[in-house]
Amino acid sequence: MPEIRQDPTTKEWVIIASNRVKRPRDFIKNQPKRSLPPYEPSCPFCRGNEYLSSEEILRYPAEEGSSWRVRVVANKYPALVPQGQTHQREEGGFFTKMNGVGAHDVIVETPLHNRPIPLMEDDEVAELLTVYRERYNQLSRDPKVRLITIFKNHGEAAGTSLIHPHSQLVATPVVSAELRRQFEVATAYHDDTGRCLYQDIIDHELRIGERIVMETEEFVVFHPFASRMPFETWIMPKKGQASFGKVPTKNLACLAQVLRITLLKLYQSLNDPDFNYAIHTAPIGDENKDYYLWHIRIVPRLTSIAGFEIGSGGMYINTALPEETADFMRNSKV
Amino acid sequence: MPEIRQDPTTKEWVIIASNRVKRPRDFIKNQPKRSLPPYEPSCPFCRGNEYLSSEEILRYPAEEGSSWRVRVVANKYPALVPQGQTHQREEGGFFTKMNGVGAHDVIVETPLHNRPIPLMEDDEVAELLTVYRERYNQLSRDPKVRLITIFKNHGEAAGTSLIHPHSQLVATPVVSAELRRQFEVATAYHDDTGRCLYQDIIDHELRIGERIVMETEEFVVFHPFASRMPFETWIMPKKGQASFGKVPTKNLACLAQVLRITLLKLYQSLNDPDFNYAIHTAPIGDENKDYYLWHIRIVPRLTSIAGFEIGSGGMYINTALPEETADFMRNSKV
Repeated sequence: MPEIRQDPTTKEWVIIASNRVKRPRDFIKNQPKRSLPPYEPSCPFCRGNEYLSSEEILRYPAEEGSSWRVRVVANKYPALVPQGQTHQREEGGFFTKMNGVGAHDVIVETPLHNRPIPLMEDDEVAELLTVYRERYNQLSRDPKVRLITIFKNHGEAAGTSLIHPHSQLVATPVVSAELRRQFEVATAYHDDTGRCLYQDIIDHELRIGERIVMETEEFVVFHPFASRMPFETWIMPKKGQASFGKVPTKNLACLAQVLRITLLKLYQSLNDPDFNYAIHTAPIGDENKDYYLWHIRIVPRLTSIAGFEIGSGGMYINTALPEETADFMRNSKV
Repeated sequence: MPEIRQDPTTKEWVIIASNRVKRPRDFIKNQPKRSLPPYEPSCPFCRGNEYLSSEEILRYPAEEGSSWRVRVVANKYPALVPQGQTHQREEGGFFTKMNGVGAHDVIVETPLHNRPIPLMEDDEVAELLTVYRERYNQLSRDPKVRLITIFKNHGEAAGTSLIHPHSQLVATPVVSAELRRQFEVATAYHDDTGRCLYQDIIDHELRIGERIVMETEEFVVFHPFASRMPFETWIMPKKGQASFGKVPTKNLACLAQVLRITLLKLYQSLNDPDFNYAIHTAPIGDENKDYYLWHIRIVPRLTSIAGFEIGSGGMYINTALPEETADFMRNSKV
């Protein structure tokens, strides 16, 4: 019997199509893992080719020279631009629009063309996360910025053709309506129970255990009850903050290890699948709300988003059982 | 300067990335149009191969024999099943889930393997739409059913590998949270103004004119102000009903022509692109609300849904200007 499950953070429904379910190993990619050289002459993100990329925003470590390990550059084709006013206006007295003011960064994760996060050392990942947080906090001081989304597209199915390991950051002068709704849901839950919904999800998942991929002192990695896509994975701090900008340095080091191992498990078990990840965080101004928890959602792109998902407006059909995929990942040795 | 536009039906924001915008003809597919035989021996949807498909639910015309022109069959791997109770229950006292009871049909649009909608005659398309409506109305009488989504996946990027022209219907015992929100927005608009939001959108689009693809006495075809994807196209009745199940037969014939020409314009101008379409309609029980209008949304799959779209929860970056794509389609001769 198929099941319809409700995502408690959005109240949206997901159909878990157990009649057409695939086993975890049916999702293993057929092609071999990407085999790449450490340096690619035409790649704008490789060390030595810095002149090929757009204006540099920051590098880490900050000293001069070519020994950078993480670099932030302006997106060559930015979705939003830093200059200008955000005043809202209407078109023909009906629609609402505003200038596309904000920021669109590219974060070059490593000078090496063939060093994706799963193959890094923990301290390299920690440096990357430190740069994420630093850039987050710089931009959050701009009064025009209302939301900062840090995300990664890995592979063509995930929306990128640039293979050099990189992430992106988009700072918008608006908060997505969807995130507003997630806050409404979390607020109502807090008003009803006095508790944090996200904290309760973690507690419940740890009690049940069957959707847990791994657990450390600081973090829980699990496949959510109402996963929209096969192998969807959430990394959540056990005691966290609403905003990613507030993560203590100590926790960034723990997160680095957890993120690397989680991505390594995917890399090894599914043969380097295409994936997206995004850091879900509170809007600027809501950083101190204790009924939200920042977290990372990893979405491997193993199946397509088709007409039902687009047509129903938000419901998904998932052809994998999160209990089975979590079990598979939990037992994947790295 | 990029723009951020608000979709008035969802209040969600779309970034129109004019800095990285592509011209309409940059989206023309490189490969030639699909070249197919009228009959494929292994295809379960071709005339003569009916024994290869699942249980038949209805055929049109209904007489016996092999002269069917549209056929509805059960999906071989249904996401939802017709038998069972929908009682809601919790898992471990925390999550909400229910049995996956509902319907999942496949609508075979034609007995011919190589006859997609843009190459049909208008009366064939009208028959298909009549079958949509008939099956909609049959299922809407089942008290378990709360929402009926009729949609189509054309091509691999749109989520199908079956090339024989077909659509799908999913009847769910729940209404998507996203559609609930669209109803909240439309209700608030009606309470504030006494008018129908969707009617006002049409009136505004017709007044402005620049996003109109075509207009008939009964229908308007346009690229919406806050298009999420390049060439996103809405077909809306000028005087309509909230529910697709209530469309008068006369209007189905007009819709057939408008749908065929709209898809033919895409087929000719973009070289048979992959696309999804879905009929957006009121939930069961809301069919008589006069502040909603059923409509069709066509979404060509020309760009990918990437980490920002997944991570921001609902905001999209669109790299085409709806005013430019609408102009291109308006001037496309068919």
